[in-house]
Amino acid sequence: MIWQLIGITAASLTTFAFVPQVIKIYKTKSAKDISIITLIQLSIGTSLWIVYGLYRKDAILIMANIITFTILLIALFLSRRYSKLYK
Amino acid sequence: MIWQLIGITAASLTTFAFVPQVIKIYKTKSAKDISIITLIQLSIGTSLWIVYGLYRKDAILIMANIITFTILLIALFLSRRYSKLYK
Repeated sequence: MIWQLIGITAASLTTFAFVPQVIKIYKTKSAKDISIITLIQLSIGTSLWIVYGLYRKDAILIMANIITFTILLIALFLSRRYSKLYK
Repeated sequence: MIWQLIGITAASLTTFAFVPQVIKIYKTKSAKDISIITLIQLSIGTSLWIVYGLYRKDAILIMANIITFTILLIALFLSRRYSKLYK
């Protein structure tokens, strides 16, 4: 029970990790320090986790990575939008 | 075999995702756009994944998260150091 709680907390923290980053970019309208490569690498990585989750029929793996992937796409969109101002 | 390759690629991409971000902060000496909350959230999350991995005796889960945690600590250290310049 305690271990399941640790697992769920770990999954929640990492799955929603980019929410504060998205909020920060949106508020400050600045993203020049953000590594686009890191965001793209994470997006490709989570997409492959979704594919792997489909093969393993692992609903939690699929759902967690769909959420992370969606947040990452928003972060990528905002980063591209606001880092252009500094080019 | 192809599925294992997809899993390994997914794990490698996400585990080393913060390497480009660390390099970018180090090169530009700037980190004001980086969300410290995102980095702390990921650090706590990966620590809990390590704890959960120890319970599950899952060597890959433990190793992957130790690597990610270490890279995140470097990112946190550099972010704190260089975001101070802008305060």
